[in-house]
Amino acid sequence: MPLTDPIPLAQDLIRCPSVTPADHGALDVVQRFLESLGFQCSRLVFGPDEWRVDNLFAMKGGGASPHFMYCGHTDVVPPGDPAHWTDDPFSGVVREGWLYGRGSNDMKGGVASFLAGLKDYIAAHPDHPGTISVLITGDEEARSVDGVARVMPWLAERDLVPDMALVGEPSSARNVGDVIRIGRRGSLTARITVQGKQGHSAMPARADNPVHRLMAALTPLLAAPLDQGTEFFPPSTLQITGFDVGNTAANVIPATARAMLNIRFNDLHTRASLIERLNAALTAAGCRYEMQADSNADPFLTEPGPFVDALQRAIRRTTGEEPELNAGGGTSDARFIRAFCPVAEFGDIGATGHQVDERAGVENLRTLSRVYTAILEECLA
Amino acid sequence: MPLTDPIPLAQDLIRCPSVTPADHGALDVVQRFLESLGFQCSRLVFGPDEWRVDNLFAMKGGGASPHFMYCGHTDVVPPGDPAHWTDDPFSGVVREGWLYGRGSNDMKGGVASFLAGLKDYIAAHPDHPGTISVLITGDEEARSVDGVARVMPWLAERDLVPDMALVGEPSSARNVGDVIRIGRRGSLTARITVQGKQGHSAMPARADNPVHRLMAALTPLLAAPLDQGTEFFPPSTLQITGFDVGNTAANVIPATARAMLNIRFNDLHTRASLIERLNAALTAAGCRYEMQADSNADPFLTEPGPFVDALQRAIRRTTGEEPELNAGGGTSDARFIRAFCPVAEFGDIGATGHQVDERAGVENLRTLSRVYTAILEECLA
Repeated sequence: MPLTDPIPLAQDLIRCPSVTPADHGALDVVQRFLESLGFQCSRLVFGPDEWRVDNLFAMKGGGASPHFMYCGHTDVVPPGDPAHWTDDPFSGVVREGWLYGRGSNDMKGGVASFLAGLKDYIAAHPDHPGTISVLITGDEEARSVDGVARVMPWLAERDLVPDMALVGEPSSARNVGDVIRIGRRGSLTARITVQGKQGHSAMPARADNPVHRLMAALTPLLAAPLDQGTEFFPPSTLQITGFDVGNTAANVIPATARAMLNIRFNDLHTRASLIERLNAALTAAGCRYEMQADSNADPFLTEPGPFVDALQRAIRRTTGEEPELNAGGGTSDARFIRAFCPVAEFGDIGATGHQVDERAGVENLRTLSRVYTAILEECLA
Repeated sequence: MPLTDPIPLAQDLIRCPSVTPADHGALDVVQRFLESLGFQCSRLVFGPDEWRVDNLFAMKGGGASPHFMYCGHTDVVPPGDPAHWTDDPFSGVVREGWLYGRGSNDMKGGVASFLAGLKDYIAAHPDHPGTISVLITGDEEARSVDGVARVMPWLAERDLVPDMALVGEPSSARNVGDVIRIGRRGSLTARITVQGKQGHSAMPARADNPVHRLMAALTPLLAAPLDQGTEFFPPSTLQITGFDVGNTAANVIPATARAMLNIRFNDLHTRASLIERLNAALTAAGCRYEMQADSNADPFLTEPGPFVDALQRAIRRTTGEEPELNAGGGTSDARFIRAFCPVAEFGDIGATGHQVDERAGVENLRTLSRVYTAILEECLA
């Protein structure tokens, strides 16, 4: 048990229905807590009028090295129909060892754990060296445009880029402490439209079936894995998430067919190499096509080194777990930080985020607080 | 040039905008013509109130053998936007050797050619033997339920089933007389829904992508032809005419995927054997699925014999063409006749039916009249 219990703070946060880009007081809860610990707080508002995003940057230590930054978010995804939930999704009920509510797992519970651990660290080390900063954003779950992506350049302009950053996303698998994420795969989405020639299904020789061509292009892409993964990265994956024709007449060969696919790729690939692979497959199948490829994330990796070593030491001595290093999972705000400094992710078990009856284990959040205290000790030593 | 020019009669028919199930006087034009030749005419109205179909059965000869029946239809498919046409689609304009208008090719031009040829035959053979009947229906282009399919049992009840039937659908390929259709392939439509498990595209191991499963089931079906065809039948064909998911989120693996396919099959297959083949492919791909299979046509064939010989002789001596026998193309009303008597199809070049600026060659229609006169001579000899 940490000296400061993170649960009441997590409940305060969950009770703010801060569905992106709304805040409803969540950042104020964090700011009041940090100001009481002596942090200087700046509110950074970005985004267009119809999508105003509030972010909080708080700092203690004036920028002196070593500068450790914690990064999290208080925005949450929508709860869906509250009737599907056992409790009001924004009530923060504790029952049988679980804290329930939207954001309890992803990631208000984690933010509260860090803040509680931070308070304990400062209480034990009132004259700690270096700088501690906390960046809490309100645009992680939706566009991811006006949060960390905007704050990092703002920090760089002010010469406040940290020496290391820890993103508190749920990283653990079965037990708190068993996984540190040291990178993430990139993501590429392609939308493909193949043009054929309409005709009667009884006379296919006079037509050109775009469904057949699109299937012929896509099938080889599924035949073999894109790679076998690397030391830290899982294999890249390709998922066809859309395939649409919109034809209702069974005896008519349609004129066009569309597909949508999403590739999660490690550092054996680049956006350009993947787009080239898609073009080659479409060309090999004789497709007349248009492709729109969008990518909002390149793969990144923080190679093991002093920062990751410090995280491992802190976790090991607090939990007894030997944390695995990997670069799996989806995208996170860490991708916007990697260009500026080493970044890793460590947090709760990622199990129920975005789901109905989202919940966090009360004891897990308390363990997490103790780990964060130890991480500050290791990183600011 | 036949003694009776079919063109004015074809124009009269085209000027009736008889889009299924409307008639707008087309059958009256035919009936007046046939009554003037001494035919007994019956109007047979079938179908529900909202889809009343008018059909004409006319007979001369009281049922005596040999009984030759001509079968055609005066209903047409919609013209679409008349603005896309050079002329009013129902004006029957003749220009530069072409008769234009909806139905000119499929198949009011053919009906007029037969009627003109019939008039010439009767003029030359006023005391011809046997029976001539003419069945003109108004439900070929849409549901094909309340036309020939209803009239044939009506004839059987009255002991008026003909000894042979000629359907006047456009059968010729490059020149009038080069093809006689002696059968048609069957048609089977399958609608398949595959159930997967929704999930995040970054974590495909936790999901089950129904798009991938459906592609894995369908791809082998396209890998090899269903067969190589038979002496008279072209190869069977399988066309995937629909593939739909309806997912808009590129990073979400959808829960279901649907496909629609249409098989045109010769007599190497049956509905049951094809459904079994589809089930086997879906099962091999590990699909959890539902399939709805509908067939409105089995394959049929009139083996060469005295009737087909007579048609070939008539065509050969009138046009000099050596007619090929085949069983290609889509479905036609002939499938409803085959269970009752030998049936073949012979008519104009099938080129512009169902298209904008549909047209028939004026000289082709006149040649067709002469062939029909010769066919009556051969078949009633």
